[in-house]
Amino acid sequence: MRILGVDPGLTRCGLGVIDQNGPRAVSLVDVAVVRSSSTEEPHRRLALIADGIEAMIAKHRPDVVAVERVFAEANVRSIISTAQVAGVAMLAAARADLPLALHSPSEVKAAVTGDGRADKAAVTLMVTRILRLDKAPRPADAADALALAITHAWRAGPLSLPSAARAQHGGAGMLPADNAPGMTAAQRAWAKAERESKMTGAADPRRRTS
Amino acid sequence: MRILGVDPGLTRCGLGVIDQNGPRAVSLVDVAVVRSSSTEEPHRRLALIADGIEAMIAKHRPDVVAVERVFAEANVRSIISTAQVAGVAMLAAARADLPLALHSPSEVKAAVTGDGRADKAAVTLMVTRILRLDKAPRPADAADALALAITHAWRAGPLSLPSAARAQHGGAGMLPADNAPGMTAAQRAWAKAERESKMTGAADPRRRTS
Repeated sequence: MRILGVDPGLTRCGLGVIDQNGPRAVSLVDVAVVRSSSTEEPHRRLALIADGIEAMIAKHRPDVVAVERVFAEANVRSIISTAQVAGVAMLAAARADLPLALHSPSEVKAAVTGDGRADKAAVTLMVTRILRLDKAPRPADAADALALAITHAWRAGPLSLPSAARAQHGGAGMLPADNAPGMTAAQRAWAKAERESKMTGAADPRRRTS
Repeated sequence: MRILGVDPGLTRCGLGVIDQNGPRAVSLVDVAVVRSSSTEEPHRRLALIADGIEAMIAKHRPDVVAVERVFAEANVRSIISTAQVAGVAMLAAARADLPLALHSPSEVKAAVTGDGRADKAAVTLMVTRILRLDKAPRPADAADALALAITHAWRAGPLSLPSAARAQHGGAGMLPADNAPGMTAAQRAWAKAERESKMTGAADPRRRTS
């Protein structure tokens, strides 16, 4: 399954494409950030971003589009433009006749770091480890888009996990232990990365500060 | 000048097209409401609405698209979906290479009723009078879309008003007296309608209740 994650934003809209090759095995396909300048009129900015999303869909033919769910209680200043960009992304998915998934920021953080309140640095670090990248995706919007795609892969995943691994799967956003039966080498790699990040505390600001 | 007004909403999106034939003369071209059911997936709903807006643009070839400006402080429950629909409408304007105008609800109310805090009934009543319609546009979303288009016509209007009428133009949202020199029969008609509504108090809830 190929997943396009969209982190909506009017100034920078993150787009991340991953392949899910097994229950927990994910790999990077492409990542980009579409930018629009505040010197442009707002509707032209939305069109620039829509063009970028549509180009990504045409290029990589994802099976599903995962967009960050925008909440009314988020940052008031940008909430309207963020929702407008999300709307444009959702429209692109519908016009490509693709299913849509919406994941909240806390779902994404919990899925990739194990902590629904993780900071941006932790998300970027885990995305880099999970996808076995040589360097962290920049800017943060790019990493966030990949994190959304990973979240979707993993949330959809438990149904197809081997039963032994599923038994160890502690709940939404929790990762199975890295020695679960039936895991591939790639799965073991990210599980190890995840475990290491827990040990250093890098992925869990609460532990780091407590 | 032909103006498409869009009152964004996910369940009902009002679309109103008017022609501006003189500084204050406006006439109805078309009005419609695009509906989407909550049983549909959200991205499919946005696509249905986008289809409706694009069809209206293709049919009537407006010179400008006026969309209601969505504020973060509006009804929290629907604010995100309203902003998403507004984004989709703005995208349609950009893709048709049309200029976009955003008008706030209070601007619209002030323009058509003289009172920025007028209720929906007053807006519908004034839209009916200004456009000399036999019956009120229903539902309110249809009237609101027409009110947006009228607001845009009139806000853009003062620059082209005859100087005598401009001198009597009391400010944003205020209407010139209906005996201003240089007014057309149509202009006199709406000014009379506006004056009558003031006399009955129908267009100004504050006066009616005080």
